[in-house]
Amino acid sequence: MPRPVKKISKKAGLPPETLVHIGERKAEKVKITIIDYDEVRFEERVVKEVRECFPYKEKQTVTWINVDGLHDPEVLEAIGTCFEIHPLVLEDIADTEQRPKMEDLERYIFVVMKMLQYDETWKEIDTEQVSLILGPNFVISFQEKEGDVFDHIRDRIRTGKGRIRKMGADYLAYALTDAIVDNYFVILDKIGQEIDRLEVELVTNPAPDTLPAIHVFKGEMIFLRKSVWPLREVVSSLERTESLLVKDTTGIYLRDVYDHTIQVIDTIESYRDIASGMLETYLSGLSYRMNEIMKVLTIIATIFIPLTFVASLYGMNFRFMPELSWRWGYLTVLGLMAVMAIGLGVYFKRKRWL
Amino acid sequence: MPRPVKKISKKAGLPPETLVHIGERKAEKVKITIIDYDEVRFEERVVKEVRECFPYKEKQTVTWINVDGLHDPEVLEAIGTCFEIHPLVLEDIADTEQRPKMEDLERYIFVVMKMLQYDETWKEIDTEQVSLILGPNFVISFQEKEGDVFDHIRDRIRTGKGRIRKMGADYLAYALTDAIVDNYFVILDKIGQEIDRLEVELVTNPAPDTLPAIHVFKGEMIFLRKSVWPLREVVSSLERTESLLVKDTTGIYLRDVYDHTIQVIDTIESYRDIASGMLETYLSGLSYRMNEIMKVLTIIATIFIPLTFVASLYGMNFRFMPELSWRWGYLTVLGLMAVMAIGLGVYFKRKRWL
Amino acid sequence: MPRPVKKISKKAGLPPETLVHIGERKAEKVKITIIDYDEVRFEERVVKEVRECFPYKEKQTVTWINVDGLHDPEVLEAIGTCFEIHPLVLEDIADTEQRPKMEDLERYIFVVMKMLQYDETWKEIDTEQVSLILGPNFVISFQEKEGDVFDHIRDRIRTGKGRIRKMGADYLAYALTDAIVDNYFVILDKIGQEIDRLEVELVTNPAPDTLPAIHVFKGEMIFLRKSVWPLREVVSSLERTESLLVKDTTGIYLRDVYDHTIQVIDTIESYRDIASGMLETYLSGLSYRMNEIMKVLTIIATIFIPLTFVASLYGMNFRFMPELSWRWGYLTVLGLMAVMAIGLGVYFKRKRWL
Amino acid sequence: MPRPVKKISKKAGLPPETLVHIGERKAEKVKITIIDYDEVRFEERVVKEVRECFPYKEKQTVTWINVDGLHDPEVLEAIGTCFEIHPLVLEDIADTEQRPKMEDLERYIFVVMKMLQYDETWKEIDTEQVSLILGPNFVISFQEKEGDVFDHIRDRIRTGKGRIRKMGADYLAYALTDAIVDNYFVILDKIGQEIDRLEVELVTNPAPDTLPAIHVFKGEMIFLRKSVWPLREVVSSLERTESLLVKDTTGIYLRDVYDHTIQVIDTIESYRDIASGMLETYLSGLSYRMNEIMKVLTIIATIFIPLTFVASLYGMNFRFMPELSWRWGYLTVLGLMAVMAIGLGVYFKRKRWL
Amino acid sequence: MPRPVKKISKKAGLPPETLVHIGERKAEKVKITIIDYDEVRFEERVVKEVRECFPYKEKQTVTWINVDGLHDPEVLEAIGTCFEIHPLVLEDIADTEQRPKMEDLERYIFVVMKMLQYDETWKEIDTEQVSLILGPNFVISFQEKEGDVFDHIRDRIRTGKGRIRKMGADYLAYALTDAIVDNYFVILDKIGQEIDRLEVELVTNPAPDTLPAIHVFKGEMIFLRKSVWPLREVVSSLERTESLLVKDTTGIYLRDVYDHTIQVIDTIESYRDIASGMLETYLSGLSYRMNEIMKVLTIIATIFIPLTFVASLYGMNFRFMPELSWRWGYLTVLGLMAVMAIGLGVYFKRKRWL
Repeated sequence: MPRPVKKISKKAGLPPETLVHIGERKAEKVKITIIDYDEVRFEERVVKEVRECFPYKEKQTVTWINVDGLHDPEVLEAIGTCFEIHPLVLEDIADTEQRPKMEDLERYIFVVMKMLQYDETWKEIDTEQVSLILGPNFVISFQEKEGDVFDHIRDRIRTGKGRIRKMGADYLAYALTDAIVDNYFVILDKIGQEIDRLEVELVTNPAPDTLPAIHVFKGEMIFLRKSVWPLREVVSSLERTESLLVKDTTGIYLRDVYDHTIQVIDTIESYRDIASGMLETYLSGLSYRMNEIMKVLTIIATIFIPLTFVASLYGMNFRFMPELSWRWGYLTVLGLMAVMAIGLGVYFKRKRWL
Repeated sequence: MPRPVKKISKKAGLPPETLVHIGERKAEKVKITIIDYDEVRFEERVVKEVRECFPYKEKQTVTWINVDGLHDPEVLEAIGTCFEIHPLVLEDIADTEQRPKMEDLERYIFVVMKMLQYDETWKEIDTEQVSLILGPNFVISFQEKEGDVFDHIRDRIRTGKGRIRKMGADYLAYALTDAIVDNYFVILDKIGQEIDRLEVELVTNPAPDTLPAIHVFKGEMIFLRKSVWPLREVVSSLERTESLLVKDTTGIYLRDVYDHTIQVIDTIESYRDIASGMLETYLSGLSYRMNEIMKVLTIIATIFIPLTFVASLYGMNFRFMPELSWRWGYLTVLGLMAVMAIGLGVYFKRKRWL
Repeated sequence: MPRPVKKISKKAGLPPETLVHIGERKAEKVKITIIDYDEVRFEERVVKEVRECFPYKEKQTVTWINVDGLHDPEVLEAIGTCFEIHPLVLEDIADTEQRPKMEDLERYIFVVMKMLQYDETWKEIDTEQVSLILGPNFVISFQEKEGDVFDHIRDRIRTGKGRIRKMGADYLAYALTDAIVDNYFVILDKIGQEIDRLEVELVTNPAPDTLPAIHVFKGEMIFLRKSVWPLREVVSSLERTESLLVKDTTGIYLRDVYDHTIQVIDTIESYRDIASGMLETYLSGLSYRMNEIMKVLTIIATIFIPLTFVASLYGMNFRFMPELSWRWGYLTVLGLMAVMAIGLGVYFKRKRWL
Repeated sequence: MPRPVKKISKKAGLPPETLVHIGERKAEKVKITIIDYDEVRFEERVVKEVRECFPYKEKQTVTWINVDGLHDPEVLEAIGTCFEIHPLVLEDIADTEQRPKMEDLERYIFVVMKMLQYDETWKEIDTEQVSLILGPNFVISFQEKEGDVFDHIRDRIRTGKGRIRKMGADYLAYALTDAIVDNYFVILDKIGQEIDRLEVELVTNPAPDTLPAIHVFKGEMIFLRKSVWPLREVVSSLERTESLLVKDTTGIYLRDVYDHTIQVIDTIESYRDIASGMLETYLSGLSYRMNEIMKVLTIIATIFIPLTFVASLYGMNFRFMPELSWRWGYLTVLGLMAVMAIGLGVYFKRKRWL
Repeated sequence: MPRPVKKISKKAGLPPETLVHIGERKAEKVKITIIDYDEVRFEERVVKEVRECFPYKEKQTVTWINVDGLHDPEVLEAIGTCFEIHPLVLEDIADTEQRPKMEDLERYIFVVMKMLQYDETWKEIDTEQVSLILGPNFVISFQEKEGDVFDHIRDRIRTGKGRIRKMGADYLAYALTDAIVDNYFVILDKIGQEIDRLEVELVTNPAPDTLPAIHVFKGEMIFLRKSVWPLREVVSSLERTESLLVKDTTGIYLRDVYDHTIQVIDTIESYRDIASGMLETYLSGLSYRMNEIMKVLTIIATIFIPLTFVASLYGMNFRFMPELSWRWGYLTVLGLMAVMAIGLGVYFKRKRWL
């Protein structure tokens, strides 16, 4: 589970609106890609200079500008100046410790989301902040590094599959949001497999590292919840916004995303319950095994300690111990011991300890 | 307890509105039945081709089209085109991992519910998604497979018992909802019997598998709650809807279903409390038995360890041990041992350990 | 604690509005009593035929019709037809698993409440459903069996004590509600005494059946809460209703009942906290006693096991053990043992184990 | 912690509006004091007869009538009749089990509060109900017994210190409320000292009676919370009331009391958290000490049991045991034992048990 | 964790509006500094007499009066009189146990906040109350002692960096609030490092003082939460206020502070979850280690107690024990013992205890 607030204090004391990249530097250099399309034409290019983006601002076609890498304040500032983005919004984009949120700033809508990816090698959830600026005919998306869950959307735009080429910038923003939310299901799937593994391990072979594994899993649920819960509000605000930037026809699609978000939250809650149940099972399993261990000890001790006492009794070296010279003394004692052992066995049987 | 989100990730990356059946394929082939009635006439038929349904759209009689099996996108699309159902709604119908919900889409109302059935052989709750489309004079119900809780309603329509033949499509939709909710009571009944069995087992013979059984039971409650809790909102929205599709006279019936839903939720909450209580009883039972086990061990050890010490003392082979040659040495030691044992017995009696 | 939903599934599959008595059959035959009064006159009679009630509907005097026994659908239906009660309301009256609720049906107000009685022999809370129909000048009360908490009200009507004879039907309905709520205090009193007994038992002699007793007590609190919590809403709705059936002057009385209901809920919550505290005390008492038991075992074992070792050392039969033939060997060993025992005693003293 | 609902059931069955004193009888006889003042004059007297109060009703000066003792229904009724107080309000005044509340009855405002006092001898919180009737130019306060927290206010009125003599009856009511709330801080101070004592005891010497002490403390917090939480609403209603009896200028003072109430609630919540933490510390302390005890036992047993076995091995009396006649047999065995003991010591050292 | 309500009871009984400094006296003498600026000019001075502040009230430039030290009622009163501050507000400023709050008093806005500082030597969070009075063109800040988190703001005013010199008094108030909130991140950073240390300690070497450390950490979270949670409301009220003192352009900056506050609260909640997880890990670690300890004891005891019994059996001194004189008796017994030991070893292996 990523620890929150690692480097956020780095900005304390600076004037607000200062563009400081907060978070790990994940990309080597900033990469800007432009996809520009309408129903009939389509253009895709990687730009070298920020100012190549500027002409697209006024174009009537839908333009999707994707920025990978947030560590270069100059790039952000250049884009901000051209597209008239408020300095505080730029600051939020550069600060990757933001909470998912949606802000309607009249000329554009600003959305912050968390894109999750499952790191197969470390069995860890990897989080990346995605910010969207939705303008009248453009969407600017900011990511921390290259590689995202939007390839299917790029394919659909390129091939003209589905209705995306016929719709406006708000549909594109919806599609990006939908891709991020759908990806949560993939993450939950992986976690579900991990749960299955843990549950089997818990029953067959609870090792000392089962407990930390459960805690890591529980921590992931808390972390996921923190990413998804505010997203619910984001999508709900987008759906209910009165901004002209979101057309009425997109409303039903946003409601669909909203339903998915609720479903993700539901699943996370279920997983938390499962984690709590596993914790209880682990702890009561410890208690149960303790009882079993103590039963074994008690049975052995209770049978043999009295027998040993009897044996050592006749190991005493008193001169006058009449039993010692009896003909059947030894056998009598052995018989007595057998009776004691059997009696105790019956007693434990009755107590259901055997 | 069915694990949520098993196959939902299968759709991630596809364009929205793609008709993909999500969930287990439960039916072999899609089966469509039509029941068409008004106060005087009644018709029931199984259709072979989807297009046989289309004429019923305009008929003034009440038509109930029931579709068993959701895995064939073509059938769904054909019905969707004829009855003008939004592609996203069709997508929701095909996706059996939906949360119960109600959507008012003006020309029709869309309701998703969960029908539960108790699998006697596996002692498991079996869930099936039922979607309803309520139009001005038709109800289309979509189920995952054949077999449902609506046979009583079919009988009432056939025989004309009750008021169902005199009422419109909204009453039919109410009757279907009511049948699903009433069936929850049957499920709760079965669970109630299982609880009785568990409670007896817990007291008389708590085995290691009692705990998993309690957890399974608790998990079922969480699962049931997730199915029923949103249903509360569904029924409440239906009752309070301003849609003309639901007549005022149906309102009081819906309020009745609402009351039943609340009652189901109340019972589920009670059962959860009972499950928590059983868990506490189990755990404190373990602690109590541990105390009992330790008492036995401690009593035995505390009585016999000192006695054995005394015995081995006089088993030492020192040449000069005057007691060994005393005439009454042996009996004195035996007496001393008896005194020690009785003394400890009295001590344990006082401590209420015996 | 009565288990909920015992027989409610018996109705699943029947058409709504079917009058099926749900619950235990508590009365042998239906008994109907009528009390009719105004400021000057008073009449009380037990009716033989249902239709004897019908003339009272139009009378300007206040009429209280009390029905004991709900298992005869014909009686309910006859009353329903005469007083124009909706079939669904009659169904709710017959179904004794209802949740307390209040419904304003314009021509009359329908109230469901739970009357509790403490069964002295079984130390159990006994619940009985009481439904009220408040019309313009009549109150019809339905009970499961004879015997209730309304005798004081009957006395007041008979003798004309208090203001009841001067007020209308709404005041009578208030008085019945008040009697039911006041009776909860009697129940809480009994439970309070049971708590005192349990708390003493917990400290002086925690037996294995103390824990189930605490759980029963906690279960009773959950059960009581379920009966009283919705009553809060019922009384609050009655007070805030805009129905002309409840006069403004009755409002202050209903606010008084509301305050009492809050007080009952407060007390129940306190009792739940007490129950949780008792559970914690019980469990930590177990742990504390376990520590005590283990201390005794450890002290005994730690002192005597090394001593026994030394003794058995000199019980070995080696031919060449010089100590054995020493003159003071035996006494030296005894002295050594005494030193060991005293040393361990001091050690335990320092560890505060003794 | 005072148990709630001790004698409240005593009233069940009586007609409402019956004046029955509920609660402990704390005062010997009813004592009525009148303080009458305006900016220029001041009068203070103890009245013998209730009717001496009546002339003050119409006086334009501010009159504070204080009644100590609630067990005499005649006195309450006389005051009620003169000042036109509703019988149900009088009933609430006499019933000392009331929840703090504020009721606006147009001609006067009725406030119920709980005055707390810390009983130094019993280390207990003592609760007393204070009811206020705020009329246009009078305040009537009802207390269970003599002795209160209002002496400072009396002094200020007598000496004319502060602004109290310049303000109206609503300011007087505010001052009384403020005195009661300020007194809660004194109580919390005492409890804070008790907490300090308990925390030290918990660490240095956790005795079996530490746990009950923590529970008593937790119970006090629950009890305090029940007294203060509704007070929040009372003060908030007073502040936001539209009644002409509370002047706008008093609003800011009431907001100040409100802030103090919130502060009291905050502190109580903190104390509850502290109590829960102490409970956890106590329980995990028990577990920790258990581990320590078991370690000692295990170390001793694990070292000496095998040694004793070896010793008793050579204590056997077989005729043919070659070792017994070896020249260095005894020393070899002693050496072997030393090696075993040291080996186990190293093992425990590695396991960090030593 | 600072204990709340240490000295607050000192004021109980005094008339309201009495200026009593509540809290620790942290400053030696009151120090007043004035910073006065507009876009072109800037003045900074330490005043000797309170009345030097008065001329700044009417000046059109923005004036920031900072007061360090609250123990001198005369200074507060002088400022209060000059700037027309309500006596109750002055009382709140002097009382350092206030809860963060915002009050709009028309002519000025009053804000109370908590400034936190991490005491490196004591590893403790140090809290200091900061009150702001925001007037039309002045901000008065009251602190308990010298030293704050505002140095960056002073620098920015002096050097004219950022936009602060161009904005009004409301921007200054925002900047002060922002500085306080940003400082919380620094505190959380320190706590995060402490968590890392604790988590490592918990796994590698859980000492008896790990538990108190976790509790201290949990207590700090509760304490922080109490400081920050009401701040959320304060900032939100400032943002939504209709007061003309806060200009619309400042709104977006306040929303930014609001986001940061939410982020702080989120982090605190995460830390609380981590603390709870550590507690669970600690406790279940204790249980796990107990099981390990008991296993060792049980294995040793179960193997050696029966062996010792056999040995002591043949240590008996009966005259007629045929085995003793057998040629291979000794070796047979040794073999028997080896078989027993190996058998038990296999048994424990199967039970996974070894």
